[in-house]
Amino acid sequence: MRVVVPFATETPNTRLEPVLTPAERAGFARAMLADVLRAVDATGHQPTVLATGPVEVDVPVTVDDRPLTNAVNTMLAESFADGSEAVAVVMADLALATPAALTRLFSTDGEVVLAPGRGGGTNALVTRQPDFRVDYHGVSIRDHRRAAREVGATVTEIDSMRLAADVDEPADLVEIVLHGDGQAREWLIEAGFEVAVTDGRATIHRSDSA
Amino acid sequence: MRVVVPFATETPNTRLEPVLTPAERAGFARAMLADVLRAVDATGHQPTVLATGPVEVDVPVTVDDRPLTNAVNTMLAESFADGSEAVAVVMADLALATPAALTRLFSTDGEVVLAPGRGGGTNALVTRQPDFRVDYHGVSIRDHRRAAREVGATVTEIDSMRLAADVDEPADLVEIVLHGDGQAREWLIEAGFEVAVTDGRATIHRSDSA
Repeated sequence: MRVVVPFATETPNTRLEPVLTPAERAGFARAMLADVLRAVDATGHQPTVLATGPVEVDVPVTVDDRPLTNAVNTMLAESFADGSEAVAVVMADLALATPAALTRLFSTDGEVVLAPGRGGGTNALVTRQPDFRVDYHGVSIRDHRRAAREVGATVTEIDSMRLAADVDEPADLVEIVLHGDGQAREWLIEAGFEVAVTDGRATIHRSDSA
Repeated sequence: MRVVVPFATETPNTRLEPVLTPAERAGFARAMLADVLRAVDATGHQPTVLATGPVEVDVPVTVDDRPLTNAVNTMLAESFADGSEAVAVVMADLALATPAALTRLFSTDGEVVLAPGRGGGTNALVTRQPDFRVDYHGVSIRDHRRAAREVGATVTEIDSMRLAADVDEPADLVEIVLHGDGQAREWLIEAGFEVAVTDGRATIHRSDSA
Protein backbone atom coordinates (compact mmCIF):
# COMPACT_ATOMS: atom_id res chain seq x y z
CA MET A 1 0.00 0.00 0.00
CA ARG A 2 1.24 3.46 -0.86
CA VAL A 3 0.74 5.89 2.06
CA VAL A 4 0.74 9.59 1.22
CA VAL A 5 0.72 12.40 3.76
CA PRO A 6 -0.21 15.78 2.22
CA PHE A 7 1.44 18.74 3.90
CA ALA A 8 1.07 22.48 3.33
CA THR A 9 4.44 24.07 3.94
CA GLU A 10 3.10 27.62 4.01
CA THR A 11 0.55 29.25 6.31
CA PRO A 12 -0.70 26.03 7.82
CA ASN A 13 -3.48 25.99 10.42
CA THR A 14 -4.63 29.56 9.89
CA ARG A 15 -7.56 29.03 12.26
CA LEU A 16 -5.09 28.68 15.12
CA GLU A 17 -4.19 32.35 14.66
CA PRO A 18 -5.84 33.37 17.94
CA VAL A 19 -3.39 31.29 19.94
CA LEU A 20 -0.25 30.80 17.82
CA THR A 21 1.98 33.13 15.83
CA PRO A 22 2.75 32.22 12.19
CA ALA A 23 6.19 30.92 13.17
CA GLU A 24 4.66 28.87 15.96
CA ARG A 25 2.03 27.45 13.64
CA ALA A 26 4.78 26.33 11.28
CA GLY A 27 6.73 24.68 14.08
CA PHE A 28 3.64 23.02 15.50
CA ALA A 29 2.58 21.77 12.06
CA ARG A 30 5.98 20.12 11.65
CA ALA A 31 5.69 18.49 15.05
CA MET A 32 2.31 17.05 14.06
CA LEU A 33 3.72 15.88 10.73
CA ALA A 34 6.57 14.12 12.54
CA ASP A 35 4.06 12.33 14.77
CA VAL A 36 2.00 11.20 11.78
CA LEU A 37 5.06 9.98 9.87
CA ARG A 38 6.29 8.08 12.91
CA ALA A 39 2.88 6.44 13.39
CA VAL A 40 2.69 5.44 9.72
CA ASP A 41 6.22 4.08 9.83
CA ALA A 42 5.34 1.97 12.87
CA THR A 43 2.60 0.25 10.88
CA GLY A 44 5.27 -1.13 8.55
CA HIS A 45 4.45 1.21 5.67
CA GLN A 46 6.82 3.81 4.32
CA PRO A 47 5.06 7.17 4.07
CA THR A 48 5.60 9.71 1.30
CA VAL A 49 5.01 13.40 1.97
CA LEU A 50 3.09 15.26 -0.72
CA ALA A 51 4.11 18.82 0.06
CA THR A 52 3.31 22.19 -1.45
CA GLY A 53 7.00 23.09 -1.16
CA PRO A 54 10.30 21.71 0.09
CA VAL A 55 10.17 20.21 3.57
CA GLU A 56 12.91 18.50 5.52
CA VAL A 57 11.82 15.06 6.61
CA ASP A 58 13.56 11.71 6.46
CA VAL A 59 11.03 10.16 4.10
CA PRO A 60 10.51 10.74 0.37
CA VAL A 61 8.88 14.07 -0.52
CA THR A 62 6.92 14.88 -3.67
CA VAL A 63 6.41 18.59 -4.23
CA ASP A 64 3.19 19.75 -5.87
CA ASP A 65 2.18 23.32 -5.21
CA ARG A 66 -1.37 23.00 -6.49
CA PRO A 67 -4.36 22.90 -4.16
CA LEU A 68 -4.74 19.76 -2.04
CA THR A 69 -7.50 18.14 -4.10
CA ASN A 70 -5.62 18.46 -7.39
CA ALA A 71 -2.33 17.28 -5.96
CA VAL A 72 -3.90 14.23 -4.31
CA ASN A 73 -5.88 13.29 -7.40
CA THR A 74 -2.79 13.46 -9.61
CA MET A 75 -0.96 11.30 -7.10
CA LEU A 76 -3.81 8.78 -7.04
CA ALA A 77 -3.87 8.53 -10.84
CA GLU A 78 -0.10 8.12 -11.06
CA SER A 79 0.04 5.57 -8.24
CA PHE A 80 -2.50 3.25 -9.82
CA ALA A 81 -0.90 3.77 -13.25
CA ASP A 82 2.40 2.72 -11.67
CA GLY A 83 0.88 -0.47 -10.35
CA SER A 84 -0.23 0.41 -6.83
CA GLU A 85 -3.16 -1.70 -5.72
CA ALA A 86 -4.08 0.49 -2.78
CA VAL A 87 -3.30 4.07 -1.83
CA ALA A 88 -3.82 5.71 1.55
CA VAL A 89 -4.06 9.44 2.14
CA VAL A 90 -3.45 10.48 5.74
CA MET A 91 -3.66 14.12 6.79
CA ALA A 92 -0.58 15.65 8.39
CA ASP A 93 -2.39 17.13 11.39
CA LEU A 94 -3.59 13.87 12.92
CA ALA A 95 -1.43 14.31 15.99
CA LEU A 96 -3.35 11.60 17.85
CA ALA A 97 -2.93 8.96 15.14
CA THR A 98 -1.48 5.79 16.58
CA PRO A 99 -0.04 2.79 14.76
CA ALA A 100 -3.07 0.82 16.02
CA ALA A 101 -5.57 3.29 14.57
CA LEU A 102 -3.73 3.46 11.24
CA THR A 103 -3.38 -0.31 11.08
CA ARG A 104 -7.12 -0.56 11.54
CA LEU A 105 -7.56 1.86 8.61
CA PHE A 106 -5.03 0.14 6.35
CA SER A 107 -6.25 -3.38 7.06
CA THR A 108 -9.98 -2.76 6.74
CA ASP A 109 -11.33 -4.44 3.65
CA GLY A 110 -13.21 -2.30 1.19
CA GLU A 111 -12.73 -0.53 -2.08
CA VAL A 112 -12.92 2.87 -0.42
CA VAL A 113 -12.33 3.17 3.33
CA LEU A 114 -12.95 6.55 4.94
CA ALA A 115 -11.96 7.93 8.33
CA PRO A 116 -14.22 10.91 9.00
CA GLY A 117 -12.91 14.05 10.63
CA ARG A 118 -14.76 16.42 12.85
CA GLY A 119 -17.06 18.80 10.98
CA GLY A 120 -17.52 16.70 7.86
CA GLY A 121 -13.90 16.31 6.87
CA THR A 122 -12.12 13.21 5.63
CA ASN A 123 -9.00 12.82 7.71
CA ALA A 124 -7.71 9.62 6.19
CA LEU A 125 -8.75 7.22 3.50
CA VAL A 126 -7.71 4.16 1.60
CA THR A 127 -8.74 3.53 -1.97
CA ARG A 128 -8.34 0.29 -3.84
CA GLN A 129 -10.52 1.65 -6.66
CA PRO A 130 -8.30 3.25 -9.32
CA ASP A 131 -11.03 5.63 -10.47
CA PHE A 132 -11.90 7.10 -7.09
CA ARG A 133 -11.01 10.76 -6.79
CA VAL A 134 -11.03 13.11 -3.80
CA ASP A 135 -12.62 16.49 -3.24
CA TYR A 136 -11.55 18.14 -0.02
CA HIS A 137 -13.68 21.25 -0.45
CA GLY A 138 -16.91 21.56 1.50
CA VAL A 139 -18.28 18.59 3.42
CA SER A 140 -15.80 16.12 2.03
CA ILE A 141 -17.05 13.04 3.88
CA ARG A 142 -20.39 13.33 2.08
CA ASP A 143 -18.70 14.07 -1.23
CA HIS A 144 -16.40 11.09 -0.84
CA ARG A 145 -19.28 8.76 -0.03
CA ARG A 146 -20.97 9.98 -3.22
CA ALA A 147 -17.78 9.87 -5.31
CA ALA A 148 -17.20 6.28 -4.28
CA ARG A 149 -20.73 5.28 -5.22
CA GLU A 150 -20.33 7.01 -8.57
CA VAL A 151 -17.38 4.79 -9.48
CA GLY A 152 -19.22 1.71 -8.18
CA ALA A 153 -17.06 1.33 -5.09
CA THR A 154 -18.26 0.08 -1.73
CA VAL A 155 -17.62 2.47 1.15
CA THR A 156 -16.50 1.44 4.61
CA GLU A 157 -16.05 3.95 7.41
CA ILE A 158 -13.59 3.66 10.26
CA ASP A 159 -14.80 4.57 13.73
CA SER A 160 -11.72 6.17 15.28
CA MET A 161 -11.54 9.12 17.62
CA ARG A 162 -7.80 9.33 16.96
CA LEU A 163 -8.25 9.62 13.22
CA ALA A 164 -11.23 11.98 13.63
CA ALA A 165 -9.24 14.43 15.73
CA ASP A 166 -7.60 16.76 13.27
CA VAL A 167 -6.37 20.17 14.36
CA ASP A 168 -8.35 23.03 12.98
CA GLU A 169 -9.43 25.24 15.86
CA PRO A 170 -7.89 26.22 19.21
CA ALA A 171 -10.41 23.94 20.99
CA ASP A 172 -8.78 20.95 19.27
CA LEU A 173 -5.46 21.48 21.02
CA VAL A 174 -6.71 20.19 24.37
CA GLU A 175 -7.26 16.77 22.79
CA ILE A 176 -3.55 16.56 21.97
CA VAL A 177 -2.53 17.44 25.50
CA LEU A 178 -5.00 14.93 26.95
CA HIS A 179 -4.48 12.02 24.56
CA GLY A 180 -1.24 12.57 22.65
CA ASP A 181 2.18 11.15 23.36
CA GLY A 182 4.38 12.59 20.64
CA GLN A 183 6.18 15.71 19.49
CA ALA A 184 3.00 17.76 19.01
CA ARG A 185 2.01 17.28 22.64
CA GLU A 186 5.51 18.07 23.78
CA TRP A 187 5.52 21.18 21.59
CA LEU A 188 2.30 22.45 23.18
CA ILE A 189 3.49 21.77 26.72
CA GLU A 190 6.78 23.55 26.05
CA ALA A 191 4.86 26.48 24.56
CA GLY A 192 3.06 26.81 27.87
CA PHE A 193 -0.27 25.22 27.06
CA GLU A 194 -2.06 23.34 29.76
CA VAL A 195 -5.48 21.90 30.30
CA ALA A 196 -7.98 24.32 31.80
CA VAL A 197 -11.05 23.03 33.58
CA THR A 198 -14.21 24.99 33.02
CA ASP A 199 -17.81 24.13 33.78
CA GLY A 200 -18.14 22.34 30.44
CA ARG A 201 -15.47 20.63 28.42
CA ALA A 202 -11.85 21.04 29.25
CA THR A 203 -10.14 23.68 27.16
CA ILE A 204 -6.61 24.83 26.76
CA HIS A 205 -4.89 27.69 28.49
CA ARG A 206 -1.55 29.25 27.72
CA SER A 207 0.49 30.44 30.63
CA ASP A 208 2.00 33.93 30.54
CA SER A 209 5.43 32.52 31.24
CA ALA A 210 5.67 30.95 27.79
CA MET B 1 -22.71 -7.29 32.07
CA ARG B 2 -24.94 -4.66 33.59
CA VAL B 3 -25.33 -1.64 31.30
CA VAL B 4 -26.48 1.59 32.90
CA VAL B 5 -27.44 4.75 31.02
CA PRO B 6 -27.59 7.83 33.26
CA PHE B 7 -30.16 10.40 32.19
CA ALA B 8 -30.96 13.86 33.55
CA THR B 9 -34.68 14.39 33.18
CA GLU B 10 -34.54 18.10 33.92
CA THR B 11 -32.73 20.93 32.12
CA PRO B 12 -30.58 18.66 30.00
CA ASN B 13 -28.03 20.06 27.55
CA THR B 14 -28.04 23.61 28.87
CA ARG B 15 -25.19 24.55 26.55
CA LEU B 16 -27.50 24.05 23.59
CA GLU B 17 -29.52 27.07 24.78
CA PRO B 18 -28.38 29.23 21.86
CA VAL B 19 -30.11 26.95 19.37
CA LEU B 20 -32.86 25.05 21.23
CA THR B 21 -35.64 26.08 23.60
CA PRO B 22 -35.95 24.21 26.92
CA ALA B 23 -38.83 22.13 25.57
CA GLU B 24 -36.82 21.32 22.46
CA ARG B 25 -33.81 20.33 24.51
CA ALA B 26 -35.99 17.94 26.49
CA GLY B 27 -37.40 16.39 23.32
CA PHE B 28 -34.01 16.13 21.69
CA ALA B 29 -32.48 14.58 24.82
CA ARG B 30 -35.17 11.89 24.76
CA ALA B 31 -34.48 11.20 21.09
CA MET B 32 -30.79 10.73 21.88
CA LEU B 33 -31.65 8.49 24.83
CA ALA B 34 -33.84 6.35 22.59
CA ASP B 35 -30.97 5.95 20.12
CA VAL B 36 -28.56 4.93 22.87
CA LEU B 37 -31.00 2.43 24.36
CA ARG B 38 -31.68 0.93 20.95
CA ALA B 39 -27.94 0.59 20.25
CA VAL B 40 -27.30 -1.05 23.64
CA ASP B 41 -30.24 -3.41 23.11
CA ALA B 42 -28.83 -4.43 19.72
CA THR B 43 -25.61 -5.57 21.40
CA GLY B 44 -27.64 -8.18 23.30
CA HIS B 45 -27.49 -6.36 26.62
CA GLN B 46 -30.52 -5.00 28.44
CA PRO B 47 -29.91 -1.39 29.45
CA THR B 48 -31.13 0.20 32.67
CA VAL B 49 -31.77 3.92 32.82
CA LEU B 50 -30.44 5.67 35.90
CA ALA B 51 -32.56 8.82 35.88
CA THR B 52 -32.83 11.87 38.08
CA GLY B 53 -36.61 11.59 37.86
CA PRO B 54 -39.36 9.53 36.24
CA VAL B 55 -38.87 8.92 32.52
CA GLU B 56 -41.01 6.89 30.16
CA VAL B 57 -38.92 4.28 28.39
CA ASP B 58 -39.49 0.60 27.78
CA VAL B 59 -36.51 -0.51 29.83
CA PRO B 60 -36.07 -0.61 33.63
CA VAL B 61 -35.56 2.78 35.26
CA THR B 62 -33.85 3.49 38.58
CA VAL B 63 -34.53 6.95 39.94
CA ASP B 64 -31.79 8.70 41.89
CA ASP B 65 -32.00 12.47 42.05
CA ARG B 66 -28.49 13.02 43.35
CA PRO B 67 -25.69 14.37 41.16
CA LEU B 68 -24.41 12.05 38.43
CA THR B 69 -21.20 10.99 40.18
CA ASN B 70 -22.97 9.99 43.41
CA ALA B 71 -25.77 8.16 41.64
CA VAL B 72 -23.37 6.19 39.44
CA ASN B 73 -21.09 5.27 42.33
CA THR B 74 -23.99 3.99 44.41
CA MET B 75 -25.15 1.95 41.43
CA LEU B 76 -21.62 0.54 40.95
CA ALA B 77 -21.35 -0.49 44.61
CA GLU B 78 -24.80 -2.10 44.59
CA SER B 79 -24.23 -3.91 41.30
CA PHE B 80 -21.01 -5.58 42.43
CA ALA B 81 -22.58 -6.35 45.83
CA ASP B 82 -25.44 -8.01 43.96
CA GLY B 83 -23.03 -10.22 42.05
CA SER B 84 -22.38 -8.29 38.84
CA GLU B 85 -18.96 -9.08 37.41
CA ALA B 86 -18.88 -6.12 35.04
CA VAL B 87 -20.80 -2.86 34.84
CA ALA B 88 -20.93 -0.47 31.90
CA VAL B 89 -21.92 3.18 32.13
CA VAL B 90 -22.95 4.72 28.82
CA MET B 91 -23.94 8.38 28.57
CA ALA B 92 -27.40 9.14 27.22
CA ASP B 93 -26.26 11.73 24.67
CA LEU B 94 -24.14 9.41 22.53
CA ALA B 95 -26.43 9.79 19.55
CA LEU B 96 -23.81 8.29 17.22
CA ALA B 97 -23.29 5.14 19.28
CA THR B 98 -23.71 2.05 17.15
CA PRO B 99 -24.06 -1.57 18.24
CA ALA B 100 -20.60 -2.15 16.72
CA ALA B 101 -18.97 0.62 18.73
CA LEU B 102 -20.66 -0.51 21.95
CA THR B 103 -19.78 -4.14 21.30
CA ARG B 104 -16.16 -3.07 20.94
CA LEU B 105 -16.42 -1.34 24.33
CA PHE B 106 -18.20 -4.20 26.08
CA SER B 107 -15.95 -6.92 24.67
CA THR B 108 -12.61 -5.25 25.26
CA ASP B 109 -10.70 -7.03 27.97
CA GLY B 110 -9.49 -4.98 30.89
CA GLU B 111 -10.39 -4.18 34.44
CA VAL B 112 -11.35 -0.63 33.54
CA VAL B 113 -12.13 0.26 29.93
CA LEU B 114 -12.67 3.93 29.10
CA ALA B 115 -14.18 5.61 26.04
CA PRO B 116 -12.99 9.23 26.10
CA GLY B 117 -15.29 12.06 25.12
CA ARG B 118 -14.36 15.32 23.53
CA GLY B 119 -12.88 17.84 25.94
CA GLY B 120 -11.67 15.39 28.56
CA GLY B 121 -14.95 13.66 29.31
CA THR B 122 -15.59 9.97 29.81
CA ASN B 123 -18.50 9.06 27.59
CA ALA B 124 -18.68 5.37 28.34
CA LEU B 125 -16.81 2.92 30.51
CA VAL B 126 -16.76 -0.66 31.68
CA THR B 127 -15.46 -1.66 35.06
CA ARG B 128 -14.75 -5.19 36.19
CA GLN B 129 -13.02 -3.85 39.29
CA PRO B 130 -15.54 -3.64 42.16
CA ASP B 131 -13.68 -0.81 43.90
CA PHE B 132 -13.42 1.55 40.92
CA ARG B 133 -15.45 4.71 41.39
CA VAL B 134 -16.28 7.52 38.95
CA ASP B 135 -15.87 11.27 39.18
CA TYR B 136 -17.51 13.14 36.34
CA HIS B 137 -16.45 16.59 37.50
CA GLY B 138 -13.57 18.31 35.77
CA VAL B 139 -11.38 16.42 33.31
CA SER B 140 -12.91 13.06 34.06
CA ILE B 141 -10.81 10.99 31.66
CA ARG B 142 -7.68 11.95 33.59
CA ASP B 143 -9.40 11.40 36.93
CA HIS B 144 -10.65 7.99 35.82
CA ARG B 145 -7.20 6.91 34.65
CA ARG B 146 -5.89 7.90 38.08
CA ALA B 147 -8.80 6.35 39.98
CA ALA B 148 -8.25 3.05 38.19
CA ARG B 149 -4.56 3.05 39.05
CA GLU B 150 -5.36 3.82 42.67
CA VAL B 151 -7.43 0.63 42.97
CA GLY B 152 -4.76 -1.36 41.12
CA ALA B 153 -6.78 -1.73 37.94
CA THR B 154 -5.36 -1.80 34.44
CA VAL B 155 -6.84 0.83 32.10
CA THR B 156 -7.68 0.26 28.46
CA GLU B 157 -8.99 3.04 26.24
CA ILE B 158 -11.34 2.59 23.30
CA ASP B 159 -10.59 4.56 20.15
CA SER B 160 -14.08 5.38 18.88
CA MET B 161 -15.27 8.55 17.21
CA ARG B 162 -18.85 7.42 17.77
CA LEU B 163 -18.39 7.03 21.49
CA ALA B 164 -16.33 10.24 21.69
CA ALA B 165 -19.08 12.33 20.09
CA ASP B 166 -21.29 13.44 22.93
CA VAL B 167 -23.57 16.43 22.54
CA ASP B 168 -22.56 19.40 24.58
CA GLU B 169 -22.33 22.41 22.28
CA PRO B 170 -24.20 23.53 19.16
CA ALA B 171 -21.16 22.60 17.03
CA ASP B 172 -21.69 18.97 18.01
CA LEU B 173 -25.06 18.76 16.29
CA VAL B 174 -23.59 18.69 12.79
CA GLU B 175 -21.93 15.37 13.62
CA ILE B 176 -25.34 13.81 14.25
CA VAL B 177 -26.73 15.06 10.96
CA LEU B 178 -23.63 13.82 9.10
CA HIS B 179 -23.12 10.47 10.79
CA GLY B 180 -26.31 9.55 12.65
CA ASP B 181 -29.12 7.28 11.55
CA GLY B 182 -31.57 7.35 14.43
CA GLN B 183 -34.21 9.41 16.16
CA ALA B 184 -31.84 12.21 17.17
CA ARG B 185 -30.87 12.85 13.56
CA GLU B 186 -34.49 12.71 12.49
CA TRP B 187 -35.41 15.13 15.28
CA LEU B 188 -32.81 17.66 14.12
CA ILE B 189 -33.85 17.41 10.49
CA GLU B 190 -37.51 17.87 11.40
CA ALA B 191 -36.58 20.87 13.54
CA GLY B 192 -35.07 22.46 10.44
CA PHE B 193 -31.39 21.86 11.02
CA GLU B 194 -29.20 21.27 8.03
CA VAL B 195 -25.51 21.14 7.33
CA ALA B 196 -23.96 24.49 6.47
CA VAL B 197 -20.72 24.65 4.56
CA THR B 198 -18.31 27.33 5.64
CA ASP B 199 -14.65 27.83 4.85
CA GLY B 200 -13.66 25.60 7.74
CA ARG B 201 -15.57 22.75 9.26
CA ALA B 202 -19.18 22.13 8.40
CA THR B 203 -21.55 23.60 10.93
CA ILE B 204 -25.26 23.46 11.44
CA HIS B 205 -27.85 25.92 10.30
CA ARG B 206 -31.47 26.14 11.28
CA SER B 207 -33.89 27.20 8.60
CA ASP B 208 -36.44 29.91 9.39
CA SER B 209 -39.23 27.64 8.27
CA ALA B 210 -38.90 25.39 11.28
